[in-house]
Amino acid sequence: MKTAVFPGSFDPFTKGHEDIVRKALSLFDKVIVAIGVNSTKSYLFELEKRERWIRDVFADSRQVEVVPFEGLTVDLCKKHHASFILRGLRNPADFQYESNIAHMNEGLDASIQSVFLLCDPRFAAINASIVREIFKNGGDVSNFIPNTIDLHA
Amino acid sequence: MKTAVFPGSFDPFTKGHEDIVRKALSLFDKVIVAIGVNSTKSYLFELEKRERWIRDVFADSRQVEVVPFEGLTVDLCKKHHASFILRGLRNPADFQYESNIAHMNEGLDASIQSVFLLCDPRFAAINASIVREIFKNGGDVSNFIPNTIDLHA
Amino acid sequence: MKTAVFPGSFDPFTKGHEDIVRKALSLFDKVIVAIGVNSTKSYLFELEKRERWIRDVFADSRQVEVVPFEGLTVDLCKKHHASFILRGLRNPADFQYESNIAHMNEGLDASIQSVFLLCDPRFAAINASIVREIFKNGGDVSNFIPNTIDLHA
Amino acid sequence: MKTAVFPGSFDPFTKGHEDIVRKALSLFDKVIVAIGVNSTKSYLFELEKRERWIRDVFADSRQVEVVPFEGLTVDLCKKHHASFILRGLRNPADFQYESNIAHMNEGLDASIQSVFLLCDPRFAAINASIVREIFKNGGDVSNFIPNTIDLHA
Amino acid sequence: MKTAVFPGSFDPFTKGHEDIVRKALSLFDKVIVAIGVNSTKSYLFELEKRERWIRDVFADSRQVEVVPFEGLTVDLCKKHHASFILRGLRNPADFQYESNIAHMNEGLDASIQSVFLLCDPRFAAINASIVREIFKNGGDVSNFIPNTIDLHA
Amino acid sequence: MKTAVFPGSFDPFTKGHEDIVRKALSLFDKVIVAIGVNSTKSYLFELEKRERWIRDVFADSRQVEVVPFEGLTVDLCKKHHASFILRGLRNPADFQYESNIAHMNEGLDASIQSVFLLCDPRFAAINASIVREIFKNGGDVSNFIPNTIDLHA
Repeated sequence: MKTAVFPGSFDPFTKGHEDIVRKALSLFDKVIVAIGVNSTKSYLFELEKRERWIRDVFADSRQVEVVPFEGLTVDLCKKHHASFILRGLRNPADFQYESNIAHMNEGLDASIQSVFLLCDPRFAAINASIVREIFKNGGDVSNFIPNTIDLHA
Repeated sequence: MKTAVFPGSFDPFTKGHEDIVRKALSLFDKVIVAIGVNSTKSYLFELEKRERWIRDVFADSRQVEVVPFEGLTVDLCKKHHASFILRGLRNPADFQYESNIAHMNEGLDASIQSVFLLCDPRFAAINASIVREIFKNGGDVSNFIPNTIDLHA
Repeated sequence: MKTAVFPGSFDPFTKGHEDIVRKALSLFDKVIVAIGVNSTKSYLFELEKRERWIRDVFADSRQVEVVPFEGLTVDLCKKHHASFILRGLRNPADFQYESNIAHMNEGLDASIQSVFLLCDPRFAAINASIVREIFKNGGDVSNFIPNTIDLHA
Repeated sequence: MKTAVFPGSFDPFTKGHEDIVRKALSLFDKVIVAIGVNSTKSYLFELEKRERWIRDVFADSRQVEVVPFEGLTVDLCKKHHASFILRGLRNPADFQYESNIAHMNEGLDASIQSVFLLCDPRFAAINASIVREIFKNGGDVSNFIPNTIDLHA
Repeated sequence: MKTAVFPGSFDPFTKGHEDIVRKALSLFDKVIVAIGVNSTKSYLFELEKRERWIRDVFADSRQVEVVPFEGLTVDLCKKHHASFILRGLRNPADFQYESNIAHMNEGLDASIQSVFLLCDPRFAAINASIVREIFKNGGDVSNFIPNTIDLHA
Repeated sequence: MKTAVFPGSFDPFTKGHEDIVRKALSLFDKVIVAIGVNSTKSYLFELEKRERWIRDVFADSRQVEVVPFEGLTVDLCKKHHASFILRGLRNPADFQYESNIAHMNEGLDASIQSVFLLCDPRFAAINASIVREIFKNGGDVSNFIPNTIDLHA
């Protein structure tokens, strides 16, 4: 069974994230959406909400699992017998950042491989931190997040 | 009348900012320099000073207006009947960031368009956060800010 | 009257080109689509066809003019009393290339300014040279060029 | 069965190419190394040699197939019932180029997906056109191509 | 005597940093590793530790000096009669950042020149902030820092 | 004695090239401007002219030598006992290209090191191929090449 971990803080989960996970379902048997919890960071949306929102988005799919996690991504992979880390790429700056992380992860555990899919151009500008900024300023972010998610709920 | 909003925190306003606004005066009838105020950020220079400094730089031009604002840039545009957001580009990293913001703004209000001008190469390395760092360390920043501005005033 | 020149070889004219010109119509009074003719280059489509195709795309607009030209873009601008060169930006690599050209043009004539608009994300990957490659291999390029253009005509 | 096509001109096949294919073997059931033949391009090494060299590199693996092809990559995918196009990424410039190609391919056939793996940092600078240049100047390229390949053979 | 200053926070000093300093020893007579101390930043490792670790790494070389410093790099250069600032480059994003800093430094003191060396590809993904993150999560960072350094000491 | 080779085709030599060589004179004892001759390429200006122009630019300096060469840069370095290859960097795209070449050269001869200097921002957009294009179209390129060079001579 081919399992991939899709790590992120998903604060909030966007249409771009959804796009990558849906594409990955034809490549992997299972995709674990792993919500990273870092005690030194603060988040706009509570972990419970983020977890529930993502579960709702993929309520139609048995291949997707949602788990919060603390610590290193490679440790989470080992725990879930996942040999792949899934990441989406939107632009060259993303690539640079992701490639550094991937090479560092390889330095930690060479048996785990990073696999990259391309974000749909319509969603490539969506950035969770800009979404938060718009939301905090009372803007309408419905164009940027999956239809099933209501950030005010 | 073609009006453009030029948003930023201008902490402080640099020669690079001045260059972009001056170039824009041949393209637009009015350019609104909009000083963004974000209650969760802290600034090195007080809003009143930044406002006064920018007004002084453009004391010679009736086309330039200076306004502080809170909230979304697209909302400010609507309030001032501005159909354009003006941004300067210094380098490819700038472009990536600006292009994301522009596409998100388009997702919020498709009737407002982002227009980009190139920064003069002599000013392209000027970065307000490095200017602040030099200023805090007692360095001479006069090469980087308009001649009319005295940061110690 | 604000006139912009939009130079290119348009071999062929794509949806991305169309998008930039349409956006520019709210910014400029006239946009001159200038088809560059370089005697040392060979083109896939004849100049006459390219000219006609672009005219057809903008048959609905009196603001757009189509002219073939040889020589320097700044010379064409002077001839048509255009103070602006219009260019579209798709990605950071585009930006680097365009910024070099723009600075060189400024070195040739400082009174002419380059203005940049962002390509719609849906068209940002469209590249005339890939379109030609697909066309030569019998692929269907209708997703990449304006609906009014029939490359086989 | 998950099949990926790995297209290129492989003039010559490098350690970087080998690295990507070997990594892909844990992700796909079959990887088709597809040697693109473009009648308007000239190659340094004959197609027969390139084909034989790649077969030798993967003589130990039943998952790898080597096929020359003319025309569009998406057509080759359909012919071989491959739902994935495999590409290696070395750096941000690669990413930009590959992402354009991938989006154009998606515009041609949305059912075929591009999957990206990262090149090992030790091989990330290897570039077939620089290898050719060194080879033509009598340099020793053995650090850049798989050990089983003898370009002089 | 040609002296270069190699500034950074080195929190912690990595294999990438070591690589750049060792390469610079053939170019300069003396390399001053300058540990920047910024009272508004917090560091994971104490200054005394960082200083000792770097001294241990270069215990074999009389060309390397280690000094902590506060304030502007150009002021430190003047104090130590250093005409060069040494920086390592890992990737295009590094380059953009470093080039801005270098041009600002040139604006402060045109007599001091920035010299750039390339990081070994094996170390190019190493990033002190990711190293800190891994360390804080209990990961093994020995692949990323010089062998003589024990972060737990 | 520290000797650096500065390779290029210099078709023609620009103000950007001159800037890099002049900056390098404080770092190296000798700088060899090496005009690469590639029998498969065609040049706009004859080798003899390019050679003479560069000699004239540095007529004031005993540290600069001008030599034409065919073959690999690392072989030229060995012949002239040069341990360094000097390259200028203008922008991130330059960096990517140069870094690949440098790593390949290291793979050919690990004892030769590439050293990078930053181009002055005023000259960073200057590109020999755009200069040729302007020259062929009768434009005035005097802003882009050293004052002592007359391309019509």
